[in-house]
Amino acid sequence: MTDRIVYLNGEFMPFAEAKIPVMDRGFLFADGIYEVSAVLDGKLVDNAAHLARLDRSLGEIGIRNPHSLAEWERLETDLVARNGLSEGLVYMQVTRGVYERDFAFPPADVAPTVVMFTQAKKVSANPLVETGARVVTVEDIRWKRRDIKSVALLAQVLAKQAAAQAGVAEAWMVEDGAVTEGSSSTAFIVTQEQTLVTRPLSTALLPGITRAAVLRLAAEADLRVEERLFSVAEAHAAQEAFYTSASAFVMPVVEIDGRPIGEGRPGPLTRRLRELYVEMARAS
Amino acid sequence: MTDRIVYLNGEFMPFAEAKIPVMDRGFLFADGIYEVSAVLDGKLVDNAAHLARLDRSLGEIGIRNPHSLAEWERLETDLVARNGLSEGLVYMQVTRGVYERDFAFPPADVAPTVVMFTQAKKVSANPLVETGARVVTVEDIRWKRRDIKSVALLAQVLAKQAAAQAGVAEAWMVEDGAVTEGSSSTAFIVTQEQTLVTRPLSTALLPGITRAAVLRLAAEADLRVEERLFSVAEAHAAQEAFYTSASAFVMPVVEIDGRPIGEGRPGPLTRRLRELYVEMARAS
Repeated sequence: MTDRIVYLNGEFMPFAEAKIPVMDRGFLFADGIYEVSAVLDGKLVDNAAHLARLDRSLGEIGIRNPHSLAEWERLETDLVARNGLSEGLVYMQVTRGVYERDFAFPPADVAPTVVMFTQAKKVSANPLVETGARVVTVEDIRWKRRDIKSVALLAQVLAKQAAAQAGVAEAWMVEDGAVTEGSSSTAFIVTQEQTLVTRPLSTALLPGITRAAVLRLAAEADLRVEERLFSVAEAHAAQEAFYTSASAFVMPVVEIDGRPIGEGRPGPLTRRLRELYVEMARAS
Repeated sequence: MTDRIVYLNGEFMPFAEAKIPVMDRGFLFADGIYEVSAVLDGKLVDNAAHLARLDRSLGEIGIRNPHSLAEWERLETDLVARNGLSEGLVYMQVTRGVYERDFAFPPADVAPTVVMFTQAKKVSANPLVETGARVVTVEDIRWKRRDIKSVALLAQVLAKQAAAQAGVAEAWMVEDGAVTEGSSSTAFIVTQEQTLVTRPLSTALLPGITRAAVLRLAAEADLRVEERLFSVAEAHAAQEAFYTSASAFVMPVVEIDGRPIGEGRPGPLTRRLRELYVEMARAS
Protein backbone atom coordinates (compact mmCIF):
# COMPACT_ATOMS: atom_id res chain seq x y z
CA MET A 1 0.00 0.00 0.00
CA THR A 2 2.98 2.32 0.44
CA ASP A 3 3.66 2.56 -3.29
CA ARG A 4 0.38 4.37 -3.93
CA ILE A 5 0.19 7.67 -5.75
CA VAL A 6 -1.44 10.37 -3.62
CA TYR A 7 -2.97 13.65 -4.77
CA LEU A 8 -2.04 16.70 -2.70
CA ASN A 9 -2.82 20.32 -3.60
CA GLY A 10 -2.55 20.04 -7.37
CA GLU A 11 0.13 17.36 -7.60
CA PHE A 12 0.25 13.61 -7.86
CA MET A 13 3.12 12.25 -5.77
CA PRO A 14 4.46 9.08 -4.14
CA PHE A 15 2.72 8.14 -0.88
CA ALA A 16 5.84 8.81 1.22
CA GLU A 17 6.07 12.41 -0.02
CA ALA A 18 2.47 13.34 0.79
CA LYS A 19 2.94 15.42 3.93
CA ILE A 20 1.16 18.45 5.32
CA PRO A 21 2.49 21.28 7.48
CA VAL A 22 1.76 21.01 11.21
CA MET A 23 -0.16 24.32 10.92
CA ASP A 24 -2.77 22.71 8.68
CA ARG A 25 -6.18 23.36 10.26
CA GLY A 26 -7.19 19.78 9.54
CA PHE A 27 -4.46 18.61 11.92
CA LEU A 28 -4.90 21.30 14.60
CA PHE A 29 -8.69 21.79 14.64
CA ALA A 30 -10.38 18.99 12.65
CA ASP A 31 -11.40 21.93 10.47
CA GLY A 32 -12.14 19.93 7.34
CA ILE A 33 -14.55 17.74 5.41
CA TYR A 34 -14.12 14.34 3.77
CA GLU A 35 -15.83 11.95 1.40
CA VAL A 36 -15.33 8.35 0.35
CA SER A 37 -16.47 6.91 -2.99
CA ALA A 38 -16.35 3.21 -3.81
CA VAL A 39 -14.63 1.91 -6.93
CA LEU A 40 -16.01 -1.19 -8.65
CA ASP A 41 -14.62 -2.59 -11.93
CA GLY A 42 -12.35 0.48 -11.99
CA LYS A 43 -15.35 2.83 -11.96
CA LEU A 44 -16.65 5.23 -9.31
CA VAL A 45 -19.97 4.26 -7.69
CA ASP A 46 -22.73 6.88 -7.25
CA ASN A 47 -19.97 9.48 -7.30
CA ALA A 48 -22.05 12.53 -8.26
CA ALA A 49 -24.02 12.11 -5.02
CA HIS A 50 -20.81 11.94 -2.96
CA LEU A 51 -19.47 15.09 -4.63
CA ALA A 52 -22.76 16.90 -4.03
CA ARG A 53 -22.58 15.98 -0.32
CA LEU A 54 -18.93 17.11 -0.20
CA ASP A 55 -20.00 20.46 -1.64
CA ARG A 56 -22.83 20.77 0.89
CA SER A 57 -20.61 19.85 3.88
CA LEU A 58 -17.99 22.41 2.83
CA GLY A 59 -20.69 25.06 2.47
CA GLU A 60 -22.10 24.33 5.95
CA ILE A 61 -18.76 25.18 7.59
CA GLY A 62 -17.81 27.96 5.21
CA ILE A 63 -14.93 26.36 3.30
CA ARG A 64 -15.04 27.19 -0.38
CA ASN A 65 -15.09 24.15 -2.62
CA PRO A 66 -11.74 24.34 -4.45
CA HIS A 67 -12.99 22.32 -7.43
CA SER A 68 -16.02 22.03 -9.66
CA LEU A 69 -17.78 18.67 -9.71
CA ALA A 70 -16.24 17.98 -13.13
CA GLU A 71 -12.74 18.77 -11.82
CA TRP A 72 -13.24 16.51 -8.80
CA GLU A 73 -14.39 13.67 -11.01
CA ARG A 74 -11.43 14.15 -13.34
CA LEU A 75 -8.99 14.10 -10.40
CA GLU A 76 -10.61 10.98 -8.93
CA THR A 77 -10.59 9.17 -12.28
CA ASP A 78 -6.96 10.14 -12.81
CA LEU A 79 -6.02 8.90 -9.32
CA VAL A 80 -7.83 5.58 -9.84
CA ALA A 81 -6.01 5.09 -13.16
CA ARG A 82 -2.57 6.03 -11.77
CA ASN A 83 -3.06 3.47 -9.00
CA GLY A 84 -4.48 0.80 -11.30
CA LEU A 85 -7.34 0.43 -8.82
CA SER A 86 -10.11 -1.91 -9.89
CA GLU A 87 -11.89 -2.31 -6.56
CA GLY A 88 -11.71 -0.26 -3.38
CA LEU A 89 -12.16 3.34 -2.27
CA VAL A 90 -11.19 6.87 -3.19
CA TYR A 91 -10.79 9.09 -0.11
CA MET A 92 -11.03 12.89 -0.46
CA GLN A 93 -10.35 15.49 2.25
CA VAL A 94 -10.53 19.28 2.14
CA THR A 95 -9.36 21.40 5.09
CA ARG A 96 -9.44 25.14 5.71
CA GLY A 97 -5.73 25.28 4.86
CA VAL A 98 -2.49 26.27 6.54
CA TYR A 99 -2.31 29.33 8.78
CA GLU A 100 -0.90 30.41 12.14
CA ARG A 101 -2.93 28.62 14.85
CA ASP A 102 -5.99 30.63 15.91
CA PHE A 103 -9.55 29.30 16.31
CA ALA A 104 -11.27 31.85 14.03
CA PHE A 105 -11.08 31.39 10.26
CA PRO A 106 -7.91 32.56 8.49
CA PRO A 107 -8.15 35.25 5.77
CA ALA A 108 -10.31 34.25 2.80
CA ASP A 109 -7.31 34.02 0.45
CA VAL A 110 -5.78 31.07 2.37
CA ALA A 111 -6.09 28.10 0.01
CA PRO A 112 -7.90 24.98 1.24
CA THR A 113 -5.78 21.82 1.52
CA VAL A 114 -6.90 19.01 -0.80
CA VAL A 115 -5.79 15.40 -0.26
CA MET A 116 -6.94 12.31 -2.12
CA PHE A 117 -5.78 8.72 -1.85
CA THR A 118 -7.00 5.28 -2.80
CA GLN A 119 -7.44 2.13 -0.72
CA ALA A 120 -7.59 -1.27 -2.42
CA LYS A 121 -10.37 -3.29 -0.76
CA LYS A 122 -12.82 -6.07 -1.62
CA VAL A 123 -16.06 -4.13 -1.63
CA SER A 124 -18.22 -6.47 -3.74
CA ALA A 125 -16.88 -9.89 -2.68
CA ASN A 126 -16.49 -8.89 0.99
CA PRO A 127 -16.34 -12.22 2.92
CA LEU A 128 -18.29 -10.67 5.82
CA VAL A 129 -21.38 -10.62 3.58
CA GLU A 130 -21.63 -14.42 3.73
CA THR A 131 -21.50 -14.79 7.51
CA GLY A 132 -23.09 -11.43 8.29
CA ALA A 133 -21.74 -8.81 10.67
CA ARG A 134 -22.16 -8.58 14.41
CA VAL A 135 -22.71 -5.20 16.05
CA VAL A 136 -22.77 -3.75 19.55
CA THR A 137 -24.63 -0.64 20.68
CA VAL A 138 -22.78 2.28 22.31
CA GLU A 139 -23.82 5.71 23.55
CA ASP A 140 -23.85 8.37 20.83
CA ILE A 141 -21.58 11.12 22.20
CA ARG A 142 -21.08 13.07 18.96
CA TRP A 143 -21.67 16.76 18.33
CA LYS A 144 -25.04 18.06 17.15
CA ARG A 145 -24.28 18.63 13.44
CA ARG A 146 -23.96 15.00 12.38
CA ASP A 147 -25.24 15.88 8.92
CA ILE A 148 -21.84 17.49 8.21
CA LYS A 149 -19.22 14.94 7.14
CA SER A 150 -16.37 16.54 9.05
CA VAL A 151 -13.04 15.00 10.05
CA ALA A 152 -13.87 15.63 13.73
CA LEU A 153 -14.31 11.87 14.08
CA LEU A 154 -12.96 11.08 17.53
CA ALA A 155 -16.36 9.92 18.85
CA GLN A 156 -16.71 7.59 15.87
CA VAL A 157 -13.16 6.30 16.39
CA LEU A 158 -14.00 5.45 20.02
CA ALA A 159 -17.27 3.78 18.95
CA LYS A 160 -15.53 1.66 16.30
CA GLN A 161 -12.82 0.73 18.80
CA ALA A 162 -15.53 -0.42 21.26
CA ALA A 163 -16.78 -2.68 18.46
CA ALA A 164 -13.27 -3.96 17.74
CA GLN A 165 -12.70 -4.71 21.41
CA ALA A 166 -15.98 -6.64 21.49
CA GLY A 167 -14.72 -8.59 18.47
CA VAL A 168 -17.50 -7.33 16.18
CA ALA A 169 -17.57 -5.34 12.95
CA GLU A 170 -19.57 -2.23 13.79
CA ALA A 171 -21.01 -0.14 16.62
CA TRP A 172 -24.52 1.27 16.44
CA MET A 173 -24.81 4.52 18.34
CA VAL A 174 -27.77 5.13 20.63
CA GLU A 175 -29.30 8.36 21.91
CA ASP A 176 -32.40 8.59 24.11
CA GLY A 177 -32.98 4.87 23.55
CA ALA A 178 -33.06 5.14 19.75
CA VAL A 179 -30.41 3.95 17.30
CA THR A 180 -28.97 7.01 15.52
CA GLU A 181 -26.58 5.35 13.07
CA GLY A 182 -23.47 3.17 12.85
CA SER A 183 -20.01 4.60 13.61
CA SER A 184 -19.37 4.70 9.85
CA SER A 185 -22.67 3.49 8.39
CA THR A 186 -26.46 3.89 8.33
CA ALA A 187 -28.53 1.44 10.42
CA PHE A 188 -31.61 -0.39 9.08
CA ILE A 189 -33.91 -3.04 10.51
CA VAL A 190 -36.60 -5.19 8.91
CA THR A 191 -39.52 -5.73 11.30
CA GLN A 192 -41.42 -8.99 11.79
CA GLU A 193 -44.03 -7.40 9.48
CA GLN A 194 -41.41 -7.19 6.70
CA THR A 195 -41.17 -3.40 6.92
CA LEU A 196 -37.84 -1.72 6.26
CA VAL A 197 -37.14 0.89 8.97
CA THR A 198 -34.45 3.57 9.11
CA ARG A 199 -34.18 6.91 10.83
CA PRO A 200 -35.42 9.98 8.89
CA LEU A 201 -32.84 12.56 7.82
CA SER A 202 -32.09 15.47 10.17
CA THR A 203 -29.03 17.21 11.61
CA ALA A 204 -28.71 14.18 13.94
CA LEU A 205 -27.33 11.83 11.27
CA LEU A 206 -25.37 11.80 8.04
CA PRO A 207 -27.45 11.77 4.85
CA GLY A 208 -26.04 8.44 3.68
CA ILE A 209 -25.52 8.16 -0.08
CA THR A 210 -25.90 4.37 0.05
CA ARG A 211 -28.91 4.86 2.37
CA ALA A 212 -30.58 7.00 -0.32
CA ALA A 213 -29.79 4.46 -3.04
CA VAL A 214 -31.21 1.60 -0.95
CA LEU A 215 -34.41 3.55 -0.25
CA ARG A 216 -34.79 4.20 -4.01
CA LEU A 217 -34.23 0.52 -4.79
CA ALA A 218 -36.68 -0.53 -2.04
CA ALA A 219 -39.35 1.77 -3.46
CA GLU A 220 -38.78 0.38 -6.96
CA ALA A 221 -39.15 -3.14 -5.57
CA ASP A 222 -42.42 -2.13 -3.83
CA LEU A 223 -41.07 -2.88 -0.35
CA ARG A 224 -42.77 -1.33 2.69
CA VAL A 225 -40.50 1.40 4.09
CA GLU A 226 -40.87 3.54 7.23
CA GLU A 227 -38.51 6.42 7.93
CA ARG A 228 -38.78 6.73 11.70
CA LEU A 229 -36.73 6.29 14.86
CA PHE A 230 -36.34 2.74 16.08
CA SER A 231 -35.30 1.69 19.58
CA VAL A 232 -32.58 -0.72 20.66
CA ALA A 233 -35.34 -3.11 21.82
CA GLU A 234 -36.90 -3.01 18.33
CA ALA A 235 -33.51 -3.73 16.80
CA HIS A 236 -33.01 -6.72 19.13
CA ALA A 237 -36.45 -8.03 18.11
CA ALA A 238 -36.06 -7.40 14.36
CA GLN A 239 -36.50 -10.05 11.69
CA GLU A 240 -33.47 -8.77 9.79
CA ALA A 241 -30.97 -5.94 10.18
CA PHE A 242 -28.26 -4.43 8.03
CA TYR A 243 -26.12 -1.35 7.62
CA THR A 244 -25.10 0.62 4.58
CA SER A 245 -22.05 2.69 3.63
CA ALA A 246 -19.99 3.54 0.57
CA SER A 247 -17.58 0.70 1.38
CA ALA A 248 -19.89 -1.86 3.05
CA PHE A 249 -22.67 -1.45 0.44
CA VAL A 250 -25.51 -3.38 2.16
CA MET A 251 -24.07 -5.41 5.04
CA PRO A 252 -26.26 -8.03 6.77
CA VAL A 253 -26.30 -7.86 10.58
CA VAL A 254 -26.81 -11.22 12.29
CA GLU A 255 -26.25 -10.28 15.91
CA ILE A 256 -26.80 -7.15 18.02
CA ASP A 257 -25.38 -6.99 21.56
CA GLY A 258 -24.91 -10.75 21.53
CA ARG A 259 -28.53 -11.50 20.55
CA PRO A 260 -29.13 -13.27 17.24
CA ILE A 261 -31.26 -11.33 14.74
CA GLY A 262 -33.95 -13.43 13.05
CA GLU A 263 -32.37 -16.81 12.42
CA GLY A 264 -28.86 -15.56 13.06
CA ARG A 265 -27.87 -15.48 9.40
CA PRO A 266 -28.23 -12.90 6.60
CA GLY A 267 -31.91 -12.41 5.84
CA PRO A 268 -33.55 -12.74 2.41
CA LEU A 269 -34.70 -9.12 2.15
CA THR A 270 -31.20 -7.89 3.05
CA ARG A 271 -29.63 -10.21 0.48
CA ARG A 272 -32.04 -9.01 -2.17
CA LEU A 273 -31.29 -5.33 -1.44
CA ARG A 274 -27.56 -6.02 -1.60
CA GLU A 275 -27.95 -7.72 -4.99
CA LEU A 276 -30.01 -4.81 -6.30
CA TYR A 277 -27.41 -2.35 -4.98
CA VAL A 278 -24.41 -4.18 -6.52
CA GLU A 279 -26.31 -4.42 -9.81
CA MET A 280 -26.98 -0.67 -9.72
CA ALA A 281 -23.35 0.02 -8.76
CA ARG A 282 -21.96 -2.06 -11.62
CA ALA A 283 -24.31 -0.37 -14.07
CA SER A 284 -23.31 3.16 -12.97
CA MET B 1 6.92 33.60 12.94
CA THR B 2 8.12 31.33 10.12
CA ASP B 3 11.67 31.12 11.48
CA ARG B 4 10.52 29.26 14.58
CA ILE B 5 12.04 25.97 15.67
CA VAL B 6 9.41 23.24 15.94
CA TYR B 7 9.65 19.93 17.81
CA LEU B 8 8.40 16.89 15.92
CA ASN B 9 8.84 13.27 17.02
CA GLY B 10 12.18 13.59 18.75
CA GLU B 11 13.73 16.30 16.61
CA PHE B 12 13.96 20.06 16.67
CA MET B 13 13.65 21.44 13.15
CA PRO B 14 12.91 24.62 11.18
CA PHE B 15 9.21 25.51 10.98
CA ALA B 16 9.04 24.86 7.22
CA GLU B 17 10.26 21.28 7.64
CA ALA B 18 7.71 20.30 10.28
CA LYS B 19 5.33 18.19 8.24
CA ILE B 20 3.26 15.14 8.99
CA PRO B 21 2.14 12.29 6.71
CA VAL B 22 -1.44 12.53 5.40
CA MET B 23 -2.13 9.19 7.15
CA ASP B 24 -1.61 10.78 10.57
CA ARG B 25 -4.72 10.07 12.63
CA GLY B 26 -4.70 13.64 13.90
CA PHE B 27 -5.30 14.83 10.35
CA LEU B 28 -7.78 12.11 9.30
CA PHE B 29 -9.80 11.56 12.51
CA ALA B 30 -9.01 14.36 15.00
CA ASP B 31 -7.64 11.42 16.98
CA GLY B 32 -5.39 13.43 19.27
CA ILE B 33 -5.02 15.62 22.35
CA TYR B 34 -3.44 19.03 22.87
CA GLU B 35 -2.33 21.40 25.59
CA VAL B 36 -1.23 25.02 25.72
CA SER B 37 1.00 26.47 28.46
CA ALA B 38 1.70 30.18 28.81
CA VAL B 39 5.24 31.53 28.98
CA LEU B 40 5.95 34.62 31.08
CA ASP B 41 9.46 36.06 31.62
CA GLY B 42 10.73 33.03 29.69
CA LYS B 43 9.17 30.63 32.22
CA LEU B 44 6.27 28.19 31.92
CA VAL B 45 3.15 29.10 33.92
CA ASP B 46 1.36 26.44 36.01
CA ASN B 47 2.91 23.88 33.68
CA ALA B 48 2.66 20.81 35.92
CA ALA B 49 -1.14 21.18 35.93
CA HIS B 50 -1.22 21.37 32.10
CA LEU B 51 0.95 18.26 31.82
CA ALA B 52 -1.26 16.41 34.29
CA ARG B 53 -4.33 17.31 32.21
CA LEU B 54 -2.53 16.21 29.01
CA ASP B 55 -1.81 12.86 30.66
CA ARG B 56 -5.43 12.49 31.76
CA SER B 57 -6.85 13.42 28.31
CA LEU B 58 -4.54 10.91 26.60
CA GLY B 59 -5.61 8.22 29.07
CA GLU B 60 -9.31 8.93 28.46
CA ILE B 61 -8.97 8.09 24.75
CA GLY B 62 -6.39 5.34 25.16
CA ILE B 63 -3.29 7.00 23.70
CA ARG B 64 -0.20 6.18 25.71
CA ASN B 65 1.64 9.25 26.94
CA PRO B 66 4.94 9.12 25.04
CA HIS B 67 6.83 11.13 27.68
CA SER B 68 7.14 11.39 31.43
CA LEU B 69 6.23 14.73 32.99
CA ALA B 70 9.93 15.47 33.46
CA GLU B 71 10.65 14.71 29.79
CA TRP B 72 7.78 16.95 28.67
CA GLU B 73 9.02 19.79 30.82
CA ARG B 74 12.57 19.39 29.50
CA LEU B 75 11.32 19.44 25.88
CA GLU B 76 9.18 22.52 26.53
CA THR B 77 12.01 24.37 28.27
CA ASP B 78 14.38 23.45 25.45
CA LEU B 79 11.88 24.68 22.83
CA VAL B 80 11.32 27.96 24.67
CA ALA B 81 15.11 28.51 24.86
CA ARG B 82 15.73 27.62 21.19
CA ASN B 83 13.07 30.15 20.18
CA GLY B 84 14.25 32.80 22.62
CA LEU B 85 10.64 33.12 23.77
CA SER B 86 10.09 35.44 26.71
CA GLU B 87 6.30 35.78 26.49
CA GLY B 88 3.70 33.70 24.66
CA LEU B 89 2.58 30.09 24.44
CA VAL B 90 3.91 26.58 24.07
CA TYR B 91 1.52 24.36 22.10
CA MET B 92 1.75 20.55 22.45
CA GLN B 93 -0.17 17.94 20.45
CA VAL B 94 -0.12 14.15 20.61
CA THR B 95 -1.99 12.02 18.07
CA ARG B 96 -2.51 8.27 17.78
CA GLY B 97 0.15 8.21 15.05
CA VAL B 98 0.42 7.25 11.40
CA TYR B 99 -1.35 4.17 10.06
CA GLU B 100 -3.47 3.10 7.09
CA ARG B 101 -6.86 4.83 7.44
CA ASP B 102 -9.34 2.77 9.48
CA PHE B 103 -11.56 4.03 12.32
CA ALA B 104 -10.48 1.48 14.94
CA PHE B 105 -7.17 1.97 16.76
CA PRO B 106 -3.99 0.86 14.96
CA PRO B 107 -1.75 -1.80 16.56
CA ALA B 108 -0.36 -0.81 19.96
CA ASP B 109 3.20 -0.52 18.62
CA VAL B 110 2.34 2.42 16.35
CA ALA B 111 4.15 5.41 17.86
CA PRO B 112 2.10 8.50 18.79
CA THR B 113 2.93 11.67 16.87
CA VAL B 114 4.29 14.50 19.05
CA VAL B 115 4.34 18.11 17.84
CA MET B 116 5.30 21.21 19.83
CA PHE B 117 5.63 24.80 18.73
CA THR B 118 5.74 28.25 20.30
CA GLN B 119 3.69 31.36 19.62
CA ALA B 120 5.03 34.78 20.66
CA LYS B 121 2.12 36.72 22.19
CA LYS B 122 1.54 39.49 24.73
CA VAL B 123 -0.10 37.51 27.49
CA SER B 124 0.54 39.83 30.45
CA ALA B 125 0.29 43.26 28.76
CA ASN B 126 -2.64 42.24 26.51
CA PRO B 127 -4.26 45.55 25.40
CA LEU B 128 -7.72 43.95 25.54
CA VAL B 129 -7.43 43.87 29.34
CA GLU B 130 -7.73 47.68 29.51
CA THR B 131 -10.90 48.01 27.44
CA GLY B 132 -12.33 44.63 28.37
CA ALA B 133 -13.62 42.00 25.96
CA ARG B 134 -17.04 41.76 24.37
CA VAL B 135 -18.67 38.35 23.95
CA VAL B 136 -21.68 36.87 22.18
CA THR B 137 -23.56 33.72 23.14
CA VAL B 138 -23.95 30.83 20.69
CA GLU B 139 -25.50 27.37 20.91
CA ASP B 140 -23.17 24.73 22.31
CA ILE B 141 -23.11 22.00 19.65
CA ARG B 142 -20.07 20.08 20.90
CA TRP B 143 -19.78 16.39 21.70
CA LYS B 144 -20.50 15.05 25.18
CA ARG B 145 -16.94 14.51 26.47
CA ARG B 146 -15.91 18.15 26.76
CA ASP B 147 -13.60 17.28 29.66
CA ILE B 148 -11.20 15.73 27.13
CA LYS B 149 -8.96 18.33 25.46
CA SER B 150 -9.09 16.74 22.02
CA VAL B 151 -8.23 18.33 18.67
CA ALA B 152 -11.80 17.65 17.45
CA LEU B 153 -12.37 21.42 17.69
CA LEU B 154 -14.64 22.18 14.73
CA ALA B 155 -17.54 23.29 16.95
CA GLN B 156 -15.21 25.66 18.83
CA VAL B 157 -13.84 26.99 15.53
CA LEU B 158 -17.38 27.79 14.37
CA ALA B 159 -18.20 29.44 17.71
CA LYS B 160 -15.06 31.59 17.62
CA GLN B 161 -15.78 32.54 14.03
CA ALA B 162 -19.30 33.64 15.05
CA ALA B 163 -17.61 35.91 17.61
CA ALA B 164 -15.17 37.23 15.01
CA GLN B 165 -18.03 37.95 12.61
CA ALA B 166 -19.83 39.83 15.37
CA GLY B 167 -16.62 41.83 15.90
CA VAL B 168 -16.10 40.55 19.44
CA ALA B 169 -13.35 38.58 21.18
CA GLU B 170 -15.06 35.44 22.42
CA ALA B 171 -18.20 33.31 22.16
CA TRP B 172 -19.86 31.84 25.25
CA MET B 173 -21.59 28.58 24.47
CA VAL B 174 -25.08 27.90 25.79
CA GLU B 175 -26.91 24.64 26.42
CA ASP B 176 -30.41 24.34 27.91
CA GLY B 177 -30.30 28.06 28.72
CA ALA B 178 -27.08 27.84 30.78
CA VAL B 179 -23.63 29.07 29.81
CA THR B 180 -21.32 26.06 29.47
CA GLU B 181 -18.00 27.77 28.72
CA GLY B 182 -16.22 29.98 26.19
CA SER B 183 -15.05 28.62 22.84
CA SER B 184 -11.50 28.54 24.25
CA SER B 185 -11.98 29.71 27.84
CA THR B 186 -13.91 29.25 31.09
CA ALA B 187 -16.81 31.66 31.80
CA PHE B 188 -17.29 33.46 35.13
CA ILE B 189 -19.75 36.05 36.39
CA VAL B 190 -19.82 38.19 39.52
CA THR B 191 -23.39 38.66 40.75
CA GLN B 192 -24.85 41.89 42.16
CA GLU B 193 -24.22 40.28 45.58
CA GLN B 194 -20.46 40.11 44.78
CA THR B 195 -20.49 36.34 44.43
CA LEU B 196 -18.16 34.72 41.92
CA VAL B 197 -20.07 32.09 39.91
CA THR B 198 -18.73 29.47 37.52
CA ARG B 199 -20.01 26.11 36.37
CA PRO B 200 -18.96 23.04 38.40
CA LEU B 201 -16.67 20.50 36.74
CA SER B 202 -18.23 17.59 34.86
CA THR B 203 -17.85 15.89 31.49
CA ALA B 204 -19.71 18.91 30.02
CA LEU B 205 -16.75 21.29 30.26
CA LEU B 206 -12.98 21.38 30.26
CA PRO B 207 -11.35 21.39 33.69
CA GLY B 208 -9.65 24.75 33.15
CA ILE B 209 -6.18 25.07 34.64
CA THR B 210 -6.56 28.85 34.95
CA ARG B 211 -10.08 28.30 36.30
CA ALA B 212 -8.63 26.15 39.09
CA ALA B 213 -5.93 28.73 39.87
CA VAL B 214 -8.50 31.55 40.01
CA LEU B 215 -10.73 29.55 42.35
CA ARG B 216 -7.72 28.91 44.62
CA LEU B 217 -6.82 32.62 44.58
CA ALA B 218 -10.45 33.61 45.24
CA ALA B 219 -10.59 31.27 48.25
CA GLU B 220 -7.33 32.69 49.61
CA ALA B 221 -8.77 36.20 49.21
CA ASP B 222 -11.93 35.14 51.09
CA LEU B 223 -14.23 35.87 48.13
CA ARG B 224 -17.67 34.28 47.98
CA VAL B 225 -17.64 31.56 45.30
CA GLU B 226 -20.49 29.41 43.96
CA GLU B 227 -19.80 26.56 41.57
CA ARG B 228 -23.17 26.21 39.83
CA LEU B 229 -24.79 26.65 36.45
CA PHE B 230 -25.68 30.21 35.49
CA SER B 231 -28.15 31.25 32.81
CA VAL B 232 -27.69 33.69 29.92
CA ALA B 233 -30.15 36.02 31.70
CA GLU B 234 -27.99 35.93 34.85
CA ALA B 235 -24.92 36.71 32.76
CA HIS B 236 -26.70 39.67 31.14
CA ALA B 237 -27.64 40.95 34.61
CA ALA B 238 -24.22 40.35 36.22
CA GLN B 239 -22.21 43.02 38.02
CA GLU B 240 -18.99 41.80 36.40
CA ALA B 241 -17.97 39.01 34.05
CA PHE B 242 -14.71 37.54 32.86
CA TYR B 243 -13.20 34.51 31.22
CA THR B 244 -10.04 32.56 31.93
CA SER B 245 -7.63 30.56 29.79
CA ALA B 246 -3.92 29.76 29.64
CA SER B 247 -3.39 32.64 27.18
CA ALA B 248 -6.07 35.16 28.30
CA PHE B 249 -5.27 34.71 32.01
CA VAL B 250 -8.25 36.59 33.56
CA MET B 251 -9.99 38.62 30.85
CA PRO B 252 -12.65 41.19 31.84
CA VAL B 253 -15.91 40.98 29.88
CA VAL B 254 -17.69 44.33 29.45
CA GLU B 255 -20.49 43.39 27.08
CA ILE B 256 -22.52 40.22 26.43
CA ASP B 257 -24.79 40.03 23.37
CA GLY B 258 -24.59 43.83 23.01
CA ARG B 259 -25.64 44.51 26.62
CA PRO B 260 -23.15 46.30 28.87
CA ILE B 261 -22.10 44.35 31.97
CA GLY B 262 -22.08 46.44 35.16
CA GLU B 263 -20.79 49.84 34.17
CA GLY B 264 -19.48 48.63 30.82
CA ARG B 265 -15.85 48.59 31.90
CA PRO B 266 -13.61 46.05 33.63
CA GLY B 267 -14.88 45.52 37.18
CA PRO B 268 -12.80 45.84 40.37
CA LEU B 269 -13.12 42.21 41.45
CA THR B 270 -12.05 41.01 37.99
CA ARG B 271 -9.07 43.37 38.02
CA ARG B 272 -8.04 42.15 41.44
CA LEU B 273 -8.23 38.49 40.40
CA ARG B 274 -6.16 39.23 37.31
CA GLU B 275 -3.50 40.95 39.43
CA LEU B 276 -3.41 38.01 41.82
CA TYR B 277 -3.14 35.60 38.91
CA VAL B 278 -0.30 37.47 37.16
CA GLU B 279 1.52 37.71 40.50
CA MET B 280 1.15 33.96 41.00
CA ALA B 281 2.22 33.31 37.39
CA ARG B 282 5.37 35.43 37.72
CA ALA B 283 6.26 33.73 40.99
CA SER B 284 5.90 30.20 39.54
